[in-house]
Amino acid sequence: MSTLDNLNWRYATKHYDTSKKLSPEQVELIKEALRLTPSSFGLQAWKFVHVTNPELRQQLREAAWNQPQLTEASDLFILATNASIDEAFVDRYIKSIADTRGIPADALKGFRDMMVGSVSGRTPEQLETWLSRQVYIALGVAVAVAAENHIDSSPMEGFDTAKFDELLGLSALGLKSRAIFAVGFRSPEDSDQNNKKVRFPKEEMFIEL
Amino acid sequence: MSTLDNLNWRYATKHYDTSKKLSPEQVELIKEALRLTPSSFGLQAWKFVHVTNPELRQQLREAAWNQPQLTEASDLFILATNASIDEAFVDRYIKSIADTRGIPADALKGFRDMMVGSVSGRTPEQLETWLSRQVYIALGVAVAVAAENHIDSSPMEGFDTAKFDELLGLSALGLKSRAIFAVGFRSPEDSDQNNKKVRFPKEEMFIEL
Repeated sequence: MSTLDNLNWRYATKHYDTSKKLSPEQVELIKEALRLTPSSFGLQAWKFVHVTNPELRQQLREAAWNQPQLTEASDLFILATNASIDEAFVDRYIKSIADTRGIPADALKGFRDMMVGSVSGRTPEQLETWLSRQVYIALGVAVAVAAENHIDSSPMEGFDTAKFDELLGLSALGLKSRAIFAVGFRSPEDSDQNNKKVRFPKEEMFIEL
Repeated sequence: MSTLDNLNWRYATKHYDTSKKLSPEQVELIKEALRLTPSSFGLQAWKFVHVTNPELRQQLREAAWNQPQLTEASDLFILATNASIDEAFVDRYIKSIADTRGIPADALKGFRDMMVGSVSGRTPEQLETWLSRQVYIALGVAVAVAAENHIDSSPMEGFDTAKFDELLGLSALGLKSRAIFAVGFRSPEDSDQNNKKVRFPKEEMFIEL
């Protein structure tokens, strides 16, 4: 199947076949898709929570309008972002670049100062909005990578983020939950798979200039 | 090459080979990847501007810190979102569902009212933040789809959004530019392709619960 076929094959899966689990290689692929996602400046001000504990998944489900994917999907990821970042975070990232590429951190001073300026030039609200957007790139990459590999998925918002933060212990880490990404294999009984995909037509969605 | 190879092959391309253009099929694939992107409730409160006019691309480049991708990449897309949405927007979406699936709009009244409640329950700032996040899913899908098909790309922020809105005529349409997505084929002289990819290690990026 082509990429286009795969994108049309995918849909926001509601009910999963609970007997089908991702292989360890498939779990690793989804995790690497998340991890390799690009972000603004490459800052990666996020963490991904992989929840396998069944009781915890049930508690999360209750804080997410009882949506079945939370417990039925093979694997459940909560995408979280840093509520804020500071100079120390930027310096940790700079050290990561320097270590990876075998160059002195001093050689990155211009890049570092530019990032620090970009961070400190924003109000706390602007900073949080900016950081929160980035993790949606990861959501998009994961959706596409899952589809290309015939793994069903559900990108989800609509949950009690404060409750999630509490259940997952995120607040203490300075993190906020932003989105859910559930993966697995569709149940044959999930009627949503029969619904025609609804998208505005090309002539409405694109502006050609 | 596997998906994982493709994700590692991609990088935020800085310089494109200006002699290499996407085929019409490749342009169509990128456009469909954007169009088929999932969004919250499926609302698709966005538009994608495909800019081919060279003078306009030069003007956009000047409003984007003179970043070379704006004029060197084969194709340039500006991802924009609705600054706000209202009941009329929701109704247009409901009509689109009803038309696509051949069902009466009345049958979707519960879904409609839920969405209207969700929209009207947010402050203008919360609404804008929510809508602006969605288009980053499209950015992620496009990044992954381009990589899977060996098309180079540059997801970009960092531009004068007000100037972009003016140059692209977006304000009059109630739209705001959010991100740039440039696609094409890397120049052999783009030294960034030789840089080792920098990502925090798995044990830092994932929380297992």
